[in-house]
Amino acid sequence: MTTLTPPNDASTTEDPTGFTALESGVRSYSRAWPVVFDRAVGATVYTEDGDAYLDFFAGAGSLNYGHNNPVLKKVLIDYLADDRMVHSLDMFTTARRDFLETFHSLILEPRGLDHKVVFPGPGGANSVEAALKLARKVTGRESVINFTNAFHGMTLGALSVTGNSMKRGGAGIPLVHATPMPYDDYFNGDVDDFQYFRRMLEDGGSGLNEPAAVIVETVQGEGGINAARAEWLRSLAELCKEHGILLILDDIQMGCGRTGGFFSFEEAGINPDIICLSKSISGYGLPMAITLVRPELDVWEPGEHNGTFRGLAPAFATAAEAIRTYWSDDTLEKEILAKGLLIEAHFNGLVSRYPELGLVNKGRGLARGLQMPSGELADKVTTGAFERGLLVETSGPESEVVKLLPPLTITEDELRKGLAIIDEALAAAVA
Amino acid sequence: MTTLTPPNDASTTEDPTGFTALESGVRSYSRAWPVVFDRAVGATVYTEDGDAYLDFFAGAGSLNYGHNNPVLKKVLIDYLADDRMVHSLDMFTTARRDFLETFHSLILEPRGLDHKVVFPGPGGANSVEAALKLARKVTGRESVINFTNAFHGMTLGALSVTGNSMKRGGAGIPLVHATPMPYDDYFNGDVDDFQYFRRMLEDGGSGLNEPAAVIVETVQGEGGINAARAEWLRSLAELCKEHGILLILDDIQMGCGRTGGFFSFEEAGINPDIICLSKSISGYGLPMAITLVRPELDVWEPGEHNGTFRGLAPAFATAAEAIRTYWSDDTLEKEILAKGLLIEAHFNGLVSRYPELGLVNKGRGLARGLQMPSGELADKVTTGAFERGLLVETSGPESEVVKLLPPLTITEDELRKGLAIIDEALAAAVA
Amino acid sequence: MTTLTPPNDASTTEDPTGFTALESGVRSYSRAWPVVFDRAVGATVYTEDGDAYLDFFAGAGSLNYGHNNPVLKKVLIDYLADDRMVHSLDMFTTARRDFLETFHSLILEPRGLDHKVVFPGPGGANSVEAALKLARKVTGRESVINFTNAFHGMTLGALSVTGNSMKRGGAGIPLVHATPMPYDDYFNGDVDDFQYFRRMLEDGGSGLNEPAAVIVETVQGEGGINAARAEWLRSLAELCKEHGILLILDDIQMGCGRTGGFFSFEEAGINPDIICLSKSISGYGLPMAITLVRPELDVWEPGEHNGTFRGLAPAFATAAEAIRTYWSDDTLEKEILAKGLLIEAHFNGLVSRYPELGLVNKGRGLARGLQMPSGELADKVTTGAFERGLLVETSGPESEVVKLLPPLTITEDELRKGLAIIDEALAAAVA
Amino acid sequence: MTTLTPPNDASTTEDPTGFTALESGVRSYSRAWPVVFDRAVGATVYTEDGDAYLDFFAGAGSLNYGHNNPVLKKVLIDYLADDRMVHSLDMFTTARRDFLETFHSLILEPRGLDHKVVFPGPGGANSVEAALKLARKVTGRESVINFTNAFHGMTLGALSVTGNSMKRGGAGIPLVHATPMPYDDYFNGDVDDFQYFRRMLEDGGSGLNEPAAVIVETVQGEGGINAARAEWLRSLAELCKEHGILLILDDIQMGCGRTGGFFSFEEAGINPDIICLSKSISGYGLPMAITLVRPELDVWEPGEHNGTFRGLAPAFATAAEAIRTYWSDDTLEKEILAKGLLIEAHFNGLVSRYPELGLVNKGRGLARGLQMPSGELADKVTTGAFERGLLVETSGPESEVVKLLPPLTITEDELRKGLAIIDEALAAAVA
Repeated sequence: MTTLTPPNDASTTEDPTGFTALESGVRSYSRAWPVVFDRAVGATVYTEDGDAYLDFFAGAGSLNYGHNNPVLKKVLIDYLADDRMVHSLDMFTTARRDFLETFHSLILEPRGLDHKVVFPGPGGANSVEAALKLARKVTGRESVINFTNAFHGMTLGALSVTGNSMKRGGAGIPLVHATPMPYDDYFNGDVDDFQYFRRMLEDGGSGLNEPAAVIVETVQGEGGINAARAEWLRSLAELCKEHGILLILDDIQMGCGRTGGFFSFEEAGINPDIICLSKSISGYGLPMAITLVRPELDVWEPGEHNGTFRGLAPAFATAAEAIRTYWSDDTLEKEILAKGLLIEAHFNGLVSRYPELGLVNKGRGLARGLQMPSGELADKVTTGAFERGLLVETSGPESEVVKLLPPLTITEDELRKGLAIIDEALAAAVA
Repeated sequence: MTTLTPPNDASTTEDPTGFTALESGVRSYSRAWPVVFDRAVGATVYTEDGDAYLDFFAGAGSLNYGHNNPVLKKVLIDYLADDRMVHSLDMFTTARRDFLETFHSLILEPRGLDHKVVFPGPGGANSVEAALKLARKVTGRESVINFTNAFHGMTLGALSVTGNSMKRGGAGIPLVHATPMPYDDYFNGDVDDFQYFRRMLEDGGSGLNEPAAVIVETVQGEGGINAARAEWLRSLAELCKEHGILLILDDIQMGCGRTGGFFSFEEAGINPDIICLSKSISGYGLPMAITLVRPELDVWEPGEHNGTFRGLAPAFATAAEAIRTYWSDDTLEKEILAKGLLIEAHFNGLVSRYPELGLVNKGRGLARGLQMPSGELADKVTTGAFERGLLVETSGPESEVVKLLPPLTITEDELRKGLAIIDEALAAAVA
Repeated sequence: MTTLTPPNDASTTEDPTGFTALESGVRSYSRAWPVVFDRAVGATVYTEDGDAYLDFFAGAGSLNYGHNNPVLKKVLIDYLADDRMVHSLDMFTTARRDFLETFHSLILEPRGLDHKVVFPGPGGANSVEAALKLARKVTGRESVINFTNAFHGMTLGALSVTGNSMKRGGAGIPLVHATPMPYDDYFNGDVDDFQYFRRMLEDGGSGLNEPAAVIVETVQGEGGINAARAEWLRSLAELCKEHGILLILDDIQMGCGRTGGFFSFEEAGINPDIICLSKSISGYGLPMAITLVRPELDVWEPGEHNGTFRGLAPAFATAAEAIRTYWSDDTLEKEILAKGLLIEAHFNGLVSRYPELGLVNKGRGLARGLQMPSGELADKVTTGAFERGLLVETSGPESEVVKLLPPLTITEDELRKGLAIIDEALAAAVA
Repeated sequence: MTTLTPPNDASTTEDPTGFTALESGVRSYSRAWPVVFDRAVGATVYTEDGDAYLDFFAGAGSLNYGHNNPVLKKVLIDYLADDRMVHSLDMFTTARRDFLETFHSLILEPRGLDHKVVFPGPGGANSVEAALKLARKVTGRESVINFTNAFHGMTLGALSVTGNSMKRGGAGIPLVHATPMPYDDYFNGDVDDFQYFRRMLEDGGSGLNEPAAVIVETVQGEGGINAARAEWLRSLAELCKEHGILLILDDIQMGCGRTGGFFSFEEAGINPDIICLSKSISGYGLPMAITLVRPELDVWEPGEHNGTFRGLAPAFATAAEAIRTYWSDDTLEKEILAKGLLIEAHFNGLVSRYPELGLVNKGRGLARGLQMPSGELADKVTTGAFERGLLVETSGPESEVVKLLPPLTITEDELRKGLAIIDEALAAAVA
């Protein structure tokens, strides 16, 4: 057995409260934000000492409607107070029916989608695992195409299609059956879209195993807020169709309105074979995930995929209410796009103000990134922001992108306030 | 692409409500119990029509303290009403600290365990995936030993150590890196314990890849309520130690008091290297899982394993309260054992009453099974029980075991009532 | 990149001639027998200095008819002298037709076999690779069952079904898709034959991937001259048939008369689906291998398996002549069995003479082993034998078996002389 | 078990002699050339009926010095006539020493190479398997980079780095651990060399598993006579060095003078970490292969890789003599280059003559290809050539390249005669 030195976590000075004597050193967010949070409302989080932090992180995209959204909170507390069923696996429940019908009538049907709903388990990785399993079963092939800097989750199947080398290394076994292809703009426009992928598919001697599926994010959140162009997504969908490859759209972080429309791929006008949703689908930060599959792909035997927490009924209740509240019309969508433009304009200002930094303004809707010249500078900015009362994290292969995922319901004032903090933190960092 | 015919689910007559037009045919419990549930209290579940069902299933072991347990319900509603943080990833929160400290002082410390807590994601499979990843990282080996009829989850890593061939087939790729060994009593006592495993380990020419870890359940729930003897578990622990193999104890279904003590392995007096908990750890059916690792194994880099829903703070609140309420003394443990003996005695009666059936009385604590001569008969019994107002499922490779996982807090009256229903259903089935 | 220290081979004192400055340290036989061989006739090998060694090794079973067998030598030299085709891939040649027809009429037909001949490449590992590929293609399954202490070759496919842990470790990747089962008598008769394997096959929850094939040797040469009983082989064949598993019989070392009959499985009266032959098939130590497949399994596309040296025509010429010379009647077979009994009787004498050593007399035909209590003692015996003019090697997981594979054409005198040397070497070793 | 229909080979009309009743339908060359060959001298092969065929195929590059080369034939027959050792595994023999010393003094030393020689088994695939194993052992990594349209062999390890999808499909298991990269000029100059590969290596989020090695051919024979530019090979070598990746040069078909110099990579001036040689290394079409490894990579334990036919001593004798005869000076090299230019000029004539066909003139030295617009036309040309007395095959992903590998010792007259036949066949095909 290799001799490994455990991180001597307990002795670090960062632990304000004794957590680290009890918890694994694998924890990460508490290292960047070493305070103890207690309450949270809307876009504000409060520590146990009463300090307030503005939240441009939103539970990594799980709190699109804000913390403890009052409309959903009422529904949730009522549901619980009435002793309605909480844990239901895949039994029929009234809450589940309400969710299915609401999701169908307000989300799927208006968008011309006829997908069936799989409840794959409580988290996004479950949705991805289910998608991969089904694609392999349907096609009889094993191989999957993923993209550079993709993030799809940390369970073995999901990890195998994730790009980050540190996270991949954690698997402890070789991750196989996936071949990464360049994401949109990977070569800064130097190479035609899908030149490599298309050629590999068409050449019977390329050595590329025939893929069951392609798995893609429309905007790579963990990968650095890389937003694919609509035309790139359309070409990808066509390429898949041409070659009998299933298209899995991982909308876990970018769905539920993050980029404007309910689904992030609406803009591109594509109809993915399989769609993964989680994070904000419950609307309240409760663990819930669904996998949407085109009806002709729904070939599983009963119970061939399952999971203990695939039926958290209170999450169905808040999910249905969130949809009714926010997706009965296009009010929210318009607000998201407007706020997104506000950030974009602001970032353009920063790009101009610091030409020497080569900042890059990234993203769409309310998934926004400001790419710094280095991870070091990005870290200084987010650390400085935290010191000034703003929660914002980095992403990208070198953690070089300041990543903004504010609640979609954030007010314009709050947004401006947070952006001002970023300005200050950046100014201080480069001073 | 293979032409597969999707199950024409919508046309089945079993759908009372239109669910099946919207949901994937992979659903299973709703096939056995085709009613729509709405409310649930303690050991009773109510349909939307007001019909009551006694629950000997308890969310597949996720509701050990009953549905909507009033003590925990109050804590949960108060937590939510106070706008306390819901979604927290691995940020420090007051709820998380409370859970960690309570778990440490009331569960780990009194049992002489010094494990560190990993929050691996919301479900049991996350806990297993984390355990396997860590064991591989620590040892630098890939191979894992699992046991016949094991069940550890449906994500790719967890599925690879699961026995059921139908579920394995769903993976769509060959499941490798795991070698199954015979579980306790697999040969009805004909073969010495671990004869095969030990010999394979000691023989440098056996062809067995050197294992990173063994993963084991003390009682195999899905496998048919197979209870390993304490001495078998001790021998396994010794064998692992002898060969530098990590012992992963999957206590997801059998922990949290299911067999009497908080951990199901306490009886055997072993100290596993890694322990997986989920299902009833939150106490309220909320998605929560933890992985316990001996301190010297805690070698992950920050963020090397993570997950969006690894910090559902309301679940921490109910989990801490459940521990305080039920595990501050040994009252519950004694009740579990007593109720377990009640079932055991009752089943012995059935074994005697139907000598021609060769019924087998299985399990320990409140994990109980009555093995039928066939899956067909077991199905008749559980179907008959449902018709008589009892929820009880089957397990085992041929679904031949009537599997009882009542809430630990069930009353003796309810228990007797449910057993009487089983009697009736069995009598009718063999009539 | 790991820092690895190469074995400082050049500085070892064992190198008599400067070879080691030029050749990799992976060489092994030249370490045990550090002399330079030059000529060889029948059962005798001569060094460049004219020293003679009696050969109980026979090219690891590749020289069953002795070194430079005069009958075959004439055929070979004539073939070459006449400028007949040497390298032919899978083109039709007269030599190939002669081999195919001779093999059919004198070997296959008389034994009631209707297998088709695949020429898979020049070595035994090619034959095994072809067998595994075909079995997987035919069944659509990936998994293969091998046996403890099996040896099937060093290419990746063949290595994955080989037992030796040192050799497996050389792969540098996890070897998957194979599950080892206990070979005959693995538990010294304590456990019923195939108890484990049969149970795993019949139990849908065992976790054993459904196997495409079983690969087995009738006598494990590298594994320590473990001879399976005929009834064990028959039970295995029946078990395979029952479960639709193909039976691959690796007769590379034990075929071509090594155990008496041309095929080592004749004694058991089984008809394997796929048979691997190599080593002595050419009769002259020339690289040649064939894979025999039942006609209904011959489903490959043209060229789906191939190889540059699959058509060494001079080897076809010597192979055909060897079959005509030695397998037109049962003379050789009877001699093999008689010589085998001679060794057996002699070894029984040693077993009795050294009761304290617990020697074990192993094998059948002219595949014979004398198991020592330790690899250390076995090494002393073979080293002592070498010093006394006998080439004999060890095998087994601990190299604890003195392994005798003399040419089948060895004279009784030579045999007795070699056995006497073993006696002396053993006596000296335990003195 | 899938029901598969075996090719009803026996009923085909192509079988002139009854072979197909006895042999597997996997045979391929005998389908294109349905005659029975018997004798062969230099560049001419004779059927049993005495028909002569000019050979532009040379045993797929295994007969660089022609069939039954008289110089080597004498050495071989003398060797055999003197009863010198034939089968030697890795024992020291006089023949092996002669080969090692000759190879060192005439091949390695003059080229500034200090590689150690591994004898990995009799065929090219053994050399590749050994190379991959060693690269993985040295680096502790599993993944390997191969190139589009690569061919490295048919055993499992070698097949996993081979491009052809039909051959890959024959494996029957998913081929993993290899990622194909575009070979030189894969995009007709549109994309910078190694743009994709370099970026994937440098981007920690690319999802590319860190490679142990790159395996490459300087000219892809089976892939369609694709000749990489020297500068491309140099850039590849530099990229490998930069990233600590081992460079495996597969010179099995293109080595031994095929492109001019003894090694095909000499032109590029690179020094590969591992070099694979086989095919023409024995000089006489005898199965022999070597793997050359830089001394610091020679880290195997004794016997960690081995093989029964790794020491065919007559092949060492002809190999040493071939080196002495042809590589003591640069006479042969100059002739190869001159004959290569002759073909090139001739093909340029055809390219001009048939502008409408878009023929492409490919290759270097005496590895030459004429790319047709379709596999169909190429097949017509080679079939027409066969009818006119010339053996020449096709290669490339669509079998669209007429591939010329004449013996290096072919006379200019023979060469012109063969080219004239190709002219005629092409003229007839397009008539």
